[in-house]
Amino acid sequence: MALAKKPIGVFDSGIGGRTVFREIRNLLPSEDLYYLGDTARVPYGTKSPEVIRRYAEINVRFLVGQGAKVVVVACNTASATALDHVRAVFPDVPIIGVVEPVVGYLSTRPEAENIGLIGTPTTIGSGVYQSALESLGRTIRAKACPLFVPFVEEGIVSHPLVDQVIDYYLAEFREVAIDTLVLGCTHYPLLRPALEAYFRNKVHIVDSAAPTAGALRDLLVRFGLSSDPSGKGEERFFVTDAAESFRRIGGRFLGRPLSAVEHI
Amino acid sequence: MALAKKPIGVFDSGIGGRTVFREIRNLLPSEDLYYLGDTARVPYGTKSPEVIRRYAEINVRFLVGQGAKVVVVACNTASATALDHVRAVFPDVPIIGVVEPVVGYLSTRPEAENIGLIGTPTTIGSGVYQSALESLGRTIRAKACPLFVPFVEEGIVSHPLVDQVIDYYLAEFREVAIDTLVLGCTHYPLLRPALEAYFRNKVHIVDSAAPTAGALRDLLVRFGLSSDPSGKGEERFFVTDAAESFRRIGGRFLGRPLSAVEHI
Repeated sequence: MALAKKPIGVFDSGIGGRTVFREIRNLLPSEDLYYLGDTARVPYGTKSPEVIRRYAEINVRFLVGQGAKVVVVACNTASATALDHVRAVFPDVPIIGVVEPVVGYLSTRPEAENIGLIGTPTTIGSGVYQSALESLGRTIRAKACPLFVPFVEEGIVSHPLVDQVIDYYLAEFREVAIDTLVLGCTHYPLLRPALEAYFRNKVHIVDSAAPTAGALRDLLVRFGLSSDPSGKGEERFFVTDAAESFRRIGGRFLGRPLSAVEHI
Repeated sequence: MALAKKPIGVFDSGIGGRTVFREIRNLLPSEDLYYLGDTARVPYGTKSPEVIRRYAEINVRFLVGQGAKVVVVACNTASATALDHVRAVFPDVPIIGVVEPVVGYLSTRPEAENIGLIGTPTTIGSGVYQSALESLGRTIRAKACPLFVPFVEEGIVSHPLVDQVIDYYLAEFREVAIDTLVLGCTHYPLLRPALEAYFRNKVHIVDSAAPTAGALRDLLVRFGLSSDPSGKGEERFFVTDAAESFRRIGGRFLGRPLSAVEHI
């Protein structure tokens, strides 16, 4: 089979990466997309870089074994800590993460001067976003928000409790009047309405999905890997655990129910 | 080495089991205690029984390899879903969980008539507590509280946010005036002050620690496995990830800092 006809592999620790998946589907309707949710080991964001690198390698190996022509690391924690590692282990497979596309997008927005960054403890602790954005001359404040992922995983995204937990973490961002909020975790877009309300719609919110889908399209073109644009892409979903819960929760990410989830 | 001189092995998905560990230490000061926190795979409570059984087997195998004379599954999720499995895999090692001791304790308290049970989704979903307590003729209401573990893991245990999340899950228990609250998760004792305040000290709160330590003592006597009572027990702590974070968070469970944590 010609390489261009092969699927795009996408993985995340769990269901968060499907905000990226959905944007890729919208932008690249003719591509076959395989999604792997590592639900047996979720969450990644409170674990060490060493452990994340091991898990990321296992995930890329699975997707490459399924024939993936490129792999998208649709998880900020894995992108921040394991991207160099999986690129070194799989030198023949183009692999993109979500951090570089977001930084690239912000580099085109000079009006983003006073940036607030939120993410998991491991993403924030890696300092990857901070050093990239500071090298662009931006002011950057970073805050780990470890409770946001459990709230999203539980589907609690519009409730007074959510507003309380947002205030718990982000009161300091409101005080210093950030102009841009970077959602450095692919779970966080589900909190976007609550975050917009909290910042009274005065903050530009940037998430990983659109920049990453755009970077993927550019990569496919650059490597001559785009599929026949007249086709209709197929989708397969794989999880390492609890297919039922993934199907239930995951539907909220794609905005529609899933037809089938394969447990590996 | 005589079997009685060997250590007691204790494991949990992460740090929660150390509420049980502390009680064992208090009750059995002369025993050597080895604790394993499976921090690379935490949490267990939102994962499937199949996955939990696999992880529990790995953990017991490690502790037995370290010479454990008995193993305590200091995790309600693993006790509810994996105890029969690890007993079958390791028939020569006495293994106790936390569910049977708690049920045994409640069987001695007939005044516990209207019981509220809280735990992880997987523990509650297993139905193990419910069927045992119903067979004792008690009225039992069960509620999964998946956000409690992340709150405890983050050390947020006395804050208005905690009171909000308790009310989110447990308003229905207050309405029906339960007389007893069973903390079916070894993380939850850290929320005990907040829970007592929420129920205005009118509810008897039962956790896993004291009943399990008592059941362990009985087991050691029954099998002739008690160590020389004049000795002073040693302790070793093992984690599968992030020793630093375990040391920081774990100290709150034992009420003192840890001297050393070994990363396996």
